[in-house]
Amino acid sequence: MDDSYPLSRTNKVRQLPEKASYDRATVHRVLDAGLVAQIAFVQDRGPVVVPMIYGRDGDTVFLHGARKSRVIRLLEETERACLNVTLLDGIVLARSAFNSSMEYRSVTVFGTPRLVEGSAAKLRAMRIISEQSMPGRWDELREAHDREIRMTGVIALEIETASAKISDHGVDDEDDDYEIPVWAGVLPMTLSFGALVDDDRLLPGVEPSAAVRAMQNRKI
Amino acid sequence: MDDSYPLSRTNKVRQLPEKASYDRATVHRVLDAGLVAQIAFVQDRGPVVVPMIYGRDGDTVFLHGARKSRVIRLLEETERACLNVTLLDGIVLARSAFNSSMEYRSVTVFGTPRLVEGSAAKLRAMRIISEQSMPGRWDELREAHDREIRMTGVIALEIETASAKISDHGVDDEDDDYEIPVWAGVLPMTLSFGALVDDDRLLPGVEPSAAVRAMQNRKI
Repeated sequence: MDDSYPLSRTNKVRQLPEKASYDRATVHRVLDAGLVAQIAFVQDRGPVVVPMIYGRDGDTVFLHGARKSRVIRLLEETERACLNVTLLDGIVLARSAFNSSMEYRSVTVFGTPRLVEGSAAKLRAMRIISEQSMPGRWDELREAHDREIRMTGVIALEIETASAKISDHGVDDEDDDYEIPVWAGVLPMTLSFGALVDDDRLLPGVEPSAAVRAMQNRKI
Repeated sequence: MDDSYPLSRTNKVRQLPEKASYDRATVHRVLDAGLVAQIAFVQDRGPVVVPMIYGRDGDTVFLHGARKSRVIRLLEETERACLNVTLLDGIVLARSAFNSSMEYRSVTVFGTPRLVEGSAAKLRAMRIISEQSMPGRWDELREAHDREIRMTGVIALEIETASAKISDHGVDDEDDDYEIPVWAGVLPMTLSFGALVDDDRLLPGVEPSAAVRAMQNRKI
């Protein structure tokens, strides 16, 4: 079974198509590794792009914000949104500027956003978003207050079509350039976590949980 | 002198306005720290967002791609583009999901893109883009071939209006929640660089330059 997203005019990758994939599992894997997505929509016929945390469930990407915020009201009204998640993996230092580039994993999603209604559905989406950036944290925290759920606007973006583009090839220089005595290679990059910083008002004796400690070692 | 970008309907930050800045120096500082921008534009009345490397010179952001690529052709034609650069600095683990958030530096730019014409102007912009992601590398590499300059499409996005949003506040919980015996604090994040990986076809005895080694210690 070909479990891929349909190809359309919008999601078809034209540049470096050998790096492209429309495979559902590949798209999901990149989405699941990220922390922040960039959501683009049209306002007054012009483009706007906003960074937001997110979570995925099947072919739905959930986003949230203050219920009254511009981004939630606009996403609620618009029929089309585009979302990109890009994870940087390295700088490719080739023997020419022209062939220098980045290593990355990137996913672009096109779909129709809708407002999630009802406390139970909203809470479920809020949990999915929370678990994406803070795995295991939701169950450690007090339950959300009704007022907090009401104040939160949750958007579900159904993935109608999507593409992944993964660049991990290293250096690929022009034949003639291999004779140039300049160093070439890859400078790997990763989003890494530092030592936990205690809040000033921590109660005595309260230590980070195993889930919080595990976040420090997360691979993005 | 108030050296700020003008406020408009598009760039005015409505949520958490205390984190917002329209100050030119703040906007430039965030842009200068980033490696990849997200560019949004409108195609067939729908939004598209694409990650691109970039460079800044004054109030111009330069972008490039293959001359014939969709993104360059669309940016050449469109009158409006929106660009966002977001740098993640930490995860704020509050005592409730509602107050948990991220620490970040983010800039959003609105402007009119135009195609840069002429070899000298293109080459200058290509150097600026190269120096943003690979400081000091341009002068180590051979000159760009005429064919490479012709094959590269360069876009200049003039910053007409912009905003920065900087979140570095740490935990800010509800008064009642400080009594809950759960750990709270910040998990710092940074984009960090690993050990250089030699290209397989390196000439014997060729070592990374000081500029390349300095990239490993760059603060993003």
